[in-house]
Amino acid sequence: MTEKPTIGLMLGDVTGIGPEIAVKLLSRADTHAQARVVIVGDKRVLDLGMADAGKTLNVKVVDSLSDIDWNDGSIPMIDRGDTDPAAFTRGALSADAGRLAGETLGWMTERVLEGQLDGICFAPLNKAALNRGGFKFNDEHELFAHWNKHEGYYGEINVISQFVTFRVTSHVSLRRAVDLVTPERIKGAVTLAHSTLQAFGTSSPRIGVAALNPHGGESGLFGDEELKIIAPTLKKLAEQGLPTQGPLPSDTVFLKAVRKEFDAVVIMYHDQGQIATKLLGFFEGVTITGGLKTTYTTPAHGTAYDIVGQGKANEGAIAKAFHFCARIAAHKKNSALVAEVA
Amino acid sequence: MTEKPTIGLMLGDVTGIGPEIAVKLLSRADTHAQARVVIVGDKRVLDLGMADAGKTLNVKVVDSLSDIDWNDGSIPMIDRGDTDPAAFTRGALSADAGRLAGETLGWMTERVLEGQLDGICFAPLNKAALNRGGFKFNDEHELFAHWNKHEGYYGEINVISQFVTFRVTSHVSLRRAVDLVTPERIKGAVTLAHSTLQAFGTSSPRIGVAALNPHGGESGLFGDEELKIIAPTLKKLAEQGLPTQGPLPSDTVFLKAVRKEFDAVVIMYHDQGQIATKLLGFFEGVTITGGLKTTYTTPAHGTAYDIVGQGKANEGAIAKAFHFCARIAAHKKNSALVAEVA
Repeated sequence: MTEKPTIGLMLGDVTGIGPEIAVKLLSRADTHAQARVVIVGDKRVLDLGMADAGKTLNVKVVDSLSDIDWNDGSIPMIDRGDTDPAAFTRGALSADAGRLAGETLGWMTERVLEGQLDGICFAPLNKAALNRGGFKFNDEHELFAHWNKHEGYYGEINVISQFVTFRVTSHVSLRRAVDLVTPERIKGAVTLAHSTLQAFGTSSPRIGVAALNPHGGESGLFGDEELKIIAPTLKKLAEQGLPTQGPLPSDTVFLKAVRKEFDAVVIMYHDQGQIATKLLGFFEGVTITGGLKTTYTTPAHGTAYDIVGQGKANEGAIAKAFHFCARIAAHKKNSALVAEVA
Repeated sequence: MTEKPTIGLMLGDVTGIGPEIAVKLLSRADTHAQARVVIVGDKRVLDLGMADAGKTLNVKVVDSLSDIDWNDGSIPMIDRGDTDPAAFTRGALSADAGRLAGETLGWMTERVLEGQLDGICFAPLNKAALNRGGFKFNDEHELFAHWNKHEGYYGEINVISQFVTFRVTSHVSLRRAVDLVTPERIKGAVTLAHSTLQAFGTSSPRIGVAALNPHGGESGLFGDEELKIIAPTLKKLAEQGLPTQGPLPSDTVFLKAVRKEFDAVVIMYHDQGQIATKLLGFFEGVTITGGLKTTYTTPAHGTAYDIVGQGKANEGAIAKAFHFCARIAAHKKNSALVAEVA
């Protein structure tokens, strides 16, 4: 019998719909069936979320994670007492709220690295607020890698209902992305794809790899990265037990994935994947930071300022984010597999 | 009152579904309402198409385009007498068939340049057959530009039901595409977008321009082509009466187009547009070669070897291709606008 992982749930930026959907997530029985969950944030923000959601949770504030009694039927919470909702305008960007969200995630990361938590699921941040709040990184994944003192490959994973994407390159210029299509990074993305899909329960993942150039380079006529870098790397990886299909022209690999021929697509650059996933409904999807000691998952949608406090925010995406966090954390915990792929 | 344009219709590669869908197109009343149409090909191939389609056309073979009597109720045909269907295996690639298709299009191009035809619509080619048949170009658009002795910008236009794309770069490596994002090429694509959409009947086209880099360069953090090249060029073009919106991140510009906020999207590189249009149903779309003296349109789908001779090929896409050919040819003819945009 496997032990349930312990997931830390962060309520998201106080100005957005995070508290509301976190409460709705916590009200669902399936949430607690998948993992032990501890809320980390300010109790007053949780109360706001309960008011927004129109739901009351049986919550017990604890002083530390080691004080939790998992058998008393309540949901444990670490009350950081740092965020008074009355001090913020709802539905408006706040650097202070961004700073508080970042600090909470930083504290939770320390607890994962100490072994007190197995993963982190967080309700939506406002990325600009996080940046203005003092966390000056190209994206939150860089911030997380910094906290985890990570070297080597790690990457943003995007989950939509049809398939999952893994990135060889991400938040860099297209010109730099072309330079960064290296055997090492391809290996990182393919390895992460295999381990993540296995954590999701797919024992033999079918992974399509996108080409870099139009028509997959048309036999070298439109670029030779497929012939010189991508194909030889995929061949080596297959010999090492990491099979894939590709490189396939990027305008057909997603059609195959939509037709359920692939579970995942490894993409060479940011927009290659994002054009496809956003057209296919990514805002209902999940974003995962993969390849670090700490697992982070979050809904793909944002703080949705236009519907804050109306009670109509949907918890579907955060429920999926929680599910994948639990799956990956359980996989790491029980197989002692640390998804470091560098 | 405007004069109808005269469109040359080519039957496509004899090994594919071209003859069948050409006959189905010619059987439709709306085809003849839009333009005068003359068939160019081998009469035996047309007969094959009539047998496949189960339709009989009232066709009159003429010796030359100047011999056509447009008032006798028949569909005129130039019988090139060069293609005996019995010499070809249906549903299989043939270099000879590719050569014949190319030669027919070359002959038709000469007639356009002489002023005897106003545009060319062609049933599907097999691109590999065209290449093996002796026409050694990166794509058919390059071949067409060569025949038209064209210098400067021209481009492939892709029409789907939701919107139309115009390309700043096309069949080159991604690395080279980044280098080719120049003010001249952006101007070419935007100018072509305006003139084409106006030919389609949209007097004030709403044109979105995609960024090159992820997040549109994120204020220069992920590349500076938006700040240094694309935005200043779009500003100048707007001052010259060619307004656009952009540059917009490439993963959102298509969402806006799908929501009908744009009639067209100008894309910076091949896969940027193709990922979106193929996911949205491009195979039912139309491909146009724009910016040359001669207008060429064709269905986006191919020779469909798997259904050749079964009578079930659909003429929907070639009907759209014919429609757009007639619109652009009429626009050129009646406004004396030659869509040379270089």
